[in-house]
Amino acid sequence: MRYRVGCELDYDVQAEGGTPFVFNLEAQRRPNQTVLEEALTFSQDLVQDRFTMPESGNRYVRVCAGKGRLTVRYDAVVRLDPAVLAPGSVGEMPAGRLPLEVLTHLYPSRYVESDLLVSFAQKEFGRLPQGYDRVVAICNWLHDHLDYTPGSSDEHTSARDTLVQRQGVCRDFTHLAMAFCRALGIPARFVSAYAWRLSPPDFHAVMEAWLEGPEGGAWYLFDPTRKAAPDGLVRIGIGRDAAEVAFCSAYGPVECGKPRVSIAALDRSDAAPLTTEAVSLAAA
Amino acid sequence: MRYRVGCELDYDVQAEGGTPFVFNLEAQRRPNQTVLEEALTFSQDLVQDRFTMPESGNRYVRVCAGKGRLTVRYDAVVRLDPAVLAPGSVGEMPAGRLPLEVLTHLYPSRYVESDLLVSFAQKEFGRLPQGYDRVVAICNWLHDHLDYTPGSSDEHTSARDTLVQRQGVCRDFTHLAMAFCRALGIPARFVSAYAWRLSPPDFHAVMEAWLEGPEGGAWYLFDPTRKAAPDGLVRIGIGRDAAEVAFCSAYGPVECGKPRVSIAALDRSDAAPLTTEAVSLAAA
Amino acid sequence: MRYRVGCELDYDVQAEGGTPFVFNLEAQRRPNQTVLEEALTFSQDLVQDRFTMPESGNRYVRVCAGKGRLTVRYDAVVRLDPAVLAPGSVGEMPAGRLPLEVLTHLYPSRYVESDLLVSFAQKEFGRLPQGYDRVVAICNWLHDHLDYTPGSSDEHTSARDTLVQRQGVCRDFTHLAMAFCRALGIPARFVSAYAWRLSPPDFHAVMEAWLEGPEGGAWYLFDPTRKAAPDGLVRIGIGRDAAEVAFCSAYGPVECGKPRVSIAALDRSDAAPLTTEAVSLAAA
Amino acid sequence: MRYRVGCELDYDVQAEGGTPFVFNLEAQRRPNQTVLEEALTFSQDLVQDRFTMPESGNRYVRVCAGKGRLTVRYDAVVRLDPAVLAPGSVGEMPAGRLPLEVLTHLYPSRYVESDLLVSFAQKEFGRLPQGYDRVVAICNWLHDHLDYTPGSSDEHTSARDTLVQRQGVCRDFTHLAMAFCRALGIPARFVSAYAWRLSPPDFHAVMEAWLEGPEGGAWYLFDPTRKAAPDGLVRIGIGRDAAEVAFCSAYGPVECGKPRVSIAALDRSDAAPLTTEAVSLAAA
Repeated sequence: MRYRVGCELDYDVQAEGGTPFVFNLEAQRRPNQTVLEEALTFSQDLVQDRFTMPESGNRYVRVCAGKGRLTVRYDAVVRLDPAVLAPGSVGEMPAGRLPLEVLTHLYPSRYVESDLLVSFAQKEFGRLPQGYDRVVAICNWLHDHLDYTPGSSDEHTSARDTLVQRQGVCRDFTHLAMAFCRALGIPARFVSAYAWRLSPPDFHAVMEAWLEGPEGGAWYLFDPTRKAAPDGLVRIGIGRDAAEVAFCSAYGPVECGKPRVSIAALDRSDAAPLTTEAVSLAAA
Repeated sequence: MRYRVGCELDYDVQAEGGTPFVFNLEAQRRPNQTVLEEALTFSQDLVQDRFTMPESGNRYVRVCAGKGRLTVRYDAVVRLDPAVLAPGSVGEMPAGRLPLEVLTHLYPSRYVESDLLVSFAQKEFGRLPQGYDRVVAICNWLHDHLDYTPGSSDEHTSARDTLVQRQGVCRDFTHLAMAFCRALGIPARFVSAYAWRLSPPDFHAVMEAWLEGPEGGAWYLFDPTRKAAPDGLVRIGIGRDAAEVAFCSAYGPVECGKPRVSIAALDRSDAAPLTTEAVSLAAA
Repeated sequence: MRYRVGCELDYDVQAEGGTPFVFNLEAQRRPNQTVLEEALTFSQDLVQDRFTMPESGNRYVRVCAGKGRLTVRYDAVVRLDPAVLAPGSVGEMPAGRLPLEVLTHLYPSRYVESDLLVSFAQKEFGRLPQGYDRVVAICNWLHDHLDYTPGSSDEHTSARDTLVQRQGVCRDFTHLAMAFCRALGIPARFVSAYAWRLSPPDFHAVMEAWLEGPEGGAWYLFDPTRKAAPDGLVRIGIGRDAAEVAFCSAYGPVECGKPRVSIAALDRSDAAPLTTEAVSLAAA
Repeated sequence: MRYRVGCELDYDVQAEGGTPFVFNLEAQRRPNQTVLEEALTFSQDLVQDRFTMPESGNRYVRVCAGKGRLTVRYDAVVRLDPAVLAPGSVGEMPAGRLPLEVLTHLYPSRYVESDLLVSFAQKEFGRLPQGYDRVVAICNWLHDHLDYTPGSSDEHTSARDTLVQRQGVCRDFTHLAMAFCRALGIPARFVSAYAWRLSPPDFHAVMEAWLEGPEGGAWYLFDPTRKAAPDGLVRIGIGRDAAEVAFCSAYGPVECGKPRVSIAALDRSDAAPLTTEAVSLAAA
């Protein structure tokens, strides 16, 4: 399926000498996620310094913008060819067989203090059958126990805070779901995405958990907020948590407007129910 | 200079079916750190699954040990050829020029909540001249304000906790020094090491900060505890913080003894004062 | 019903000049809790400075003990005449009618951060019918969701920590139950007690919640751990939380042994089931 | 010296059935603080339920306001006759001699986690000579290390947070100063006040520390923000911390305007420098 995605961002650069920006808003190029066309444009004429991080596939662009207005626009057409499996066929992979490069995603991180939640996760989810459906059970638990409340959290809010406050936004839901996964021994990572059918449209935060289907291990997508279609997620950034996946980092005094984000399916209707199948985009 | 390093670890594996272990205790192979000879031996006859993480150089070995006693022994001779510069010649590198793969080490992590310490770091260190000596000033501040107190912290202790408690061990000193660096815009990463002249001998935790000498950017070594020789650090693991650099992770019920760690210089005397020069082992 | 209660405490006073101690281990004298006989003895010959706090009834004794061994022994016979009501007859009292001196027990305190748990408490307990049974529901929730695990917490552990860690001891269960009560607008206070049928015998921590029976408001006793008999609690100290109700505070370097605590019913058998009635000892 | 103090508060009561309010904004009646005249008026005709807490002197008024607009106005003339001593004549009082009712103010409370700051306080202030000037040193430390930044904290901010963030408002300065005092064994309590020469005028938060002058122990006033005159503080509420000293608690949905607060000296000029003498209003 093909999706047209895009965003438009406005900044007011205040420093006389200009300010460096690092953007991470282009769609990843990965097995099963093909960028068919794309354009990234800046309202100022700027040298672009580019880097794709090998371990994550994140595409970084740095520019040093001059004082004044900066508008950034990204437009792309991306084809997703997700692997879709029956949930019952997808299990967990024991530590003895996990790819060693995946083990990193078992460790606690800034906003995902899984080391503090081992007892909690064991008590709530420890006796459930292992596999894809256990991660679904985690997402269901979040749905039942948390409120999605815009404005209830800030950039310092962590999974522990969200567990106590019982509310948050997509970032917070995702951090807490990841914390439960890691505490149970399931590698989990943070994904920023253009998310089909998310309403209102915005950058979205979802999770990938490493699980094992009939053909081996892969990262499976989960949206703990249940707001978007798991098979309609165009991945942008991947990281240990939100600390690593900002769509924009400015290294100076800047005012920014609210991002305008869009996504449209080119080959399918918005009317069908969201899939309940297990969706995976790539092996690693 | 050459160093003979080693460690010996004892475990009692309790699960009937055995337990997977991942070790990260071999010396890194890097520019300026050459492993001349080495041997890793297990008291059980075990298949070794190996992986060297490209972005860190960490060398992981996984074994699935059977029930009962497991002893692990590592011995190596390592040559260090550090670049040693006059501190005054080493400056900070602005965000506009930092290598994009280094930017990751500006982000907060589990035990390094630099996002919470921006105001603190600015007030204490914001007006100091930028460069190597500003990182030295951070280490001096720790030396003046914290007590090195074995037993005062645990595996959940973070930089914020250490700042409040004013005491800790090498891991805690390093996390707090890293937090100040990141809060000031200086990339910092956690390094586990065999540390020459550390007394009593043990695995040590130190920090690398990304700075810029006359020939470009590099990771410079700092020991915020001042207990070891910066030019006598044989690096084992590198990561965002201690969460990523365990020398052993066991995925099952295990009892472990106290590690026996050793390091000896083969070409130099233990008597000379510790260097105050800027020490760097490699560019990235 | 009459109970014989007692404790014996050992200290090794290390300072040359001696050390002041404040003890709060004598049974309160209150409506429905009558001290029939009692003796507090010290192994050293000491001047006793006494104070009973009007707002709590706590009985404090201060002594300045000399260097060396100090043994403190308390023995008493106490009669409890609790008011026992049918739970269904006990409701909550709205803020507009709460005695103003009781309002203090709605505020958050050191180990009871009720201000952080308002959303959590509303979601779990906000839709339950108000009254005694809602507080029982809170205690049941703790019973179902927490493990009683000696050694899992320390003197800094607060209700928020316990909620995340899902384990604790009587002090922690009580703090969390109090936090939920206060967050719902139910005044709650911390009570240390000699607790009949607690096994093994020890100082116990329970909670009083302010509720309203047919004859007016009163403090009702709850044991969130369900380990002791609510109608067999001989109250010692009352406070906002454990910070205010230490059985001993020493203002100098002291080593202390494990307290030996005892309680025996003089008029009733240990065999009957614990009461499920609403138990209250006094109006304020 | 006499002061005319006052405040005016506006509320919009939204619940159909009205909402209970508890106010604590009248000047305390205490030795050395004499209320010469006063009037508390409500724009609605309301029954007033009154209570003066014996242990604090706080004067509470409860009303149940009807739906719609509620304006509260307080005006008073208050005479202060503070005891003013030379700082060098005021010492600390050891635990062995502290009045037992004062000991409560050594305990940690919700926003004053003195139990976590013992090591910090010892390191910064432990070697200073004991007495009034050590508390001044604490206030000076705050002045040197914190920024007074409106908007940098919220109602959940505690002393520990303030220590890490290095900024706050009068409430935060006071909590941290109290935490250091308690950690050093100096009883400290929170005071809300009409504060002469505070600019802009507002309810102010200051601290009282229990110290000992030539004639015995007393509560000495300190303004850790240095914004008001210590001898021009008309006390309203006293408590363990801000949790206990709200000027208004509404038990229902209410919108409130910004309070208008005023204070004017009737017998002295605003031009003189702030006193540096030790100021005390009463023994307990």
